Amino acid sequence: MTSALDQSPFLRACRRDPLASPPIWLMRQAGRYLKEYRELRERVPFLEMCKDPDLVTEVTEHAARRLGVDAAIIFSDLLLPVEAFGQVLTYEAGDGPAVSPPIREAADIDRLREPDLEADLGYVFEGIRRTRRALPAGLPLIGFAGAPFTLASYMIEGGGSASYRHTKTLLYSDPGAWNALMGRIVRLIGGYLNAQIAAGAQAVQIFDSWVGCLSPDDYREFALPHVQSLVAAVRPGVPVIYFGTQTGSLLSQIGATGAGVVGVDWRVDLLEAWDAIGKGAIMGNLDPTALFAPRGELVRRARALLDRAGSRPGWIFNLGHGILPHTPVDNVLALVETVHAWQAPR
Amino acid sequence: MTSALDQSPFLRACRRDPLASPPIWLMRQAGRYLKEYRELRERVPFLEMCKDPDLVTEVTEHAARRLGVDAAIIFSDLLLPVEAFGQVLTYEAGDGPAVSPPIREAADIDRLREPDLEADLGYVFEGIRRTRRALPAGLPLIGFAGAPFTLASYMIEGGGSASYRHTKTLLYSDPGAWNALMGRIVRLIGGYLNAQIAAGAQAVQIFDSWVGCLSPDDYREFALPHVQSLVAAVRPGVPVIYFGTQTGSLLSQIGATGAGVVGVDWRVDLLEAWDAIGKGAIMGNLDPTALFAPRGELVRRARALLDRAGSRPGWIFNLGHGILPHTPVDNVLALVETVHAWQAPR
Repeated sequence: MTSALDQSPFLRACRRDPLASPPIWLMRQAGRYLKEYRELRERVPFLEMCKDPDLVTEVTEHAARRLGVDAAIIFSDLLLPVEAFGQVLTYEAGDGPAVSPPIREAADIDRLREPDLEADLGYVFEGIRRTRRALPAGLPLIGFAGAPFTLASYMIEGGGSASYRHTKTLLYSDPGAWNALMGRIVRLIGGYLNAQIAAGAQAVQIFDSWVGCLSPDDYREFALPHVQSLVAAVRPGVPVIYFGTQTGSLLSQIGATGAGVVGVDWRVDLLEAWDAIGKGAIMGNLDPTALFAPRGELVRRARALLDRAGSRPGWIFNLGHGILPHTPVDNVLALVETVHAWQAPR
Repeated sequence: MTSALDQSPFLRACRRDPLASPPIWLMRQAGRYLKEYRELRERVPFLEMCKDPDLVTEVTEHAARRLGVDAAIIFSDLLLPVEAFGQVLTYEAGDGPAVSPPIREAADIDRLREPDLEADLGYVFEGIRRTRRALPAGLPLIGFAGAPFTLASYMIEGGGSASYRHTKTLLYSDPGAWNALMGRIVRLIGGYLNAQIAAGAQAVQIFDSWVGCLSPDDYREFALPHVQSLVAAVRPGVPVIYFGTQTGSLLSQIGATGAGVVGVDWRVDLLEAWDAIGKGAIMGNLDPTALFAPRGELVRRARALLDRAGSRPGWIFNLGHGILPHTPVDNVLALVETVHAWQAPR
């Protein structure tokens, strides 16, 4: 790692170095709210974009430069690894993702293909290599993957879900099959994250976006051990961000995942959440809808968060979930400027 | 109130009287998972059912009798009151509700009609009168309505929402308009709940199903005061249940709503939630998907909850949200039996 990267505000915050103001990046910062992204998407289907290393580079680098944020995150999709298991992934216009055939029982898990990281997902690593070269030398690049529970939920439900009925039915009825599936996901995703690091990512984020649908007991039994295995598999010294939504009652357990940085949504008070996690760095947690507020109100909300948490080393400013479509770009720019202009009182 | 009702396990639990086992009823106990309900719905559109006092009686009474639960809840729809404001409510097959025209600014609120409780919603009260007569004398009947935030979110979004973008944009940009809307909803719903009580409901539930999308600060400023006004408007002595999902970080505030019973979802530990609320009775909180588990696992989970909370006066057993479609009826029956058979250790 070059010294410029090592001394970047983002990586310093991951290490909990004191900083004058927190670094900021935004989940889904390369997304539909950007005109340039929409124009590209009109010409190229989503999955095709994800699999084209040059387009990945263009979209990733453009968003980071346009916003002036303190980290880039590789443009990619959480669900690409399901293809490595032999499931078919499609995005129909206007719909969410569809994964087929869905896994419903042990036999379906046995039928999953053995992934071949380089053959199946090499285009992701190539995108990271090219993006790393295209980015400013001091700007960290974040790789990412879905967490075991969240990825499994898509593989089992066959797409998004409101109730996670099939996922939970499998873990209630056949914990052995559930653990077998989680083990296979952890093996694949551990290798996937390390290959992203080898290709040029300075940190990795594990998205457990939907894990907040579990009760605290079920999280402890069916999700946490697999997150721990995955975090432990990541190359030592590389910051791991573990992010979930609706995790307010899971935070003390999340403190035990081993992740050095925890991302939280806006449903929790940032400092109370930080105390509940108990250690490490934190990322969050402005409500993404705040970007739809009038400029003055947006700035007031950002400053309130900064005044509350800005003096505490180890905070990475982010939204509590991804930027929403229709978000006004000017407000995103104003947010980044507000965070960068803030100074901890002395 | 007759003495049989007054001494019913449900009303005793609301008063925190010690009981050998907790009473149980289930949110959406009259719903699509019941064959008889589906057969009726094939003949009669949903809103037509809600507006036919005889069908309301039939559906409400049938579910309570079929399950052997300790309370009936009137079959109705959260969104009926929007019609009293002059908005148009429709349910298209397969879709969720649509409310039009949606409210987006102060002028839209000014254009809302002045509700006429009896003319607009009299069919609900007639349904309650007939249902009360049809139910066993000792079985309490619960009336209900949407909470101000949740009702407003439908009126503003024009239906369900994933982000509540328009709702939050209104409260960020025009708090005066927001408060005016909440004031009008509180006036309508206060009268609506009291008329349900006058018609024969022994308790009322306020569904703030979607309030968990708010940050703790926004809940404090934009939702809590209006819940407090609404609870205060309900006829004294009648138990009020305040229910929401994803409220894990809001529970200490919810303890200040004035509601005597708080309903919580499965994302929180029941006893920790109860302590955070701080007083009163609690309702919850088995994950509705537990009803898809094999019978033994379902019973094990119900008993774990009973062993944990069953000895504490003031607990009403319920799911953490409504029964899901496709839920096996036999499992629902087994759950009710498990709860009734449980005895507090002496």
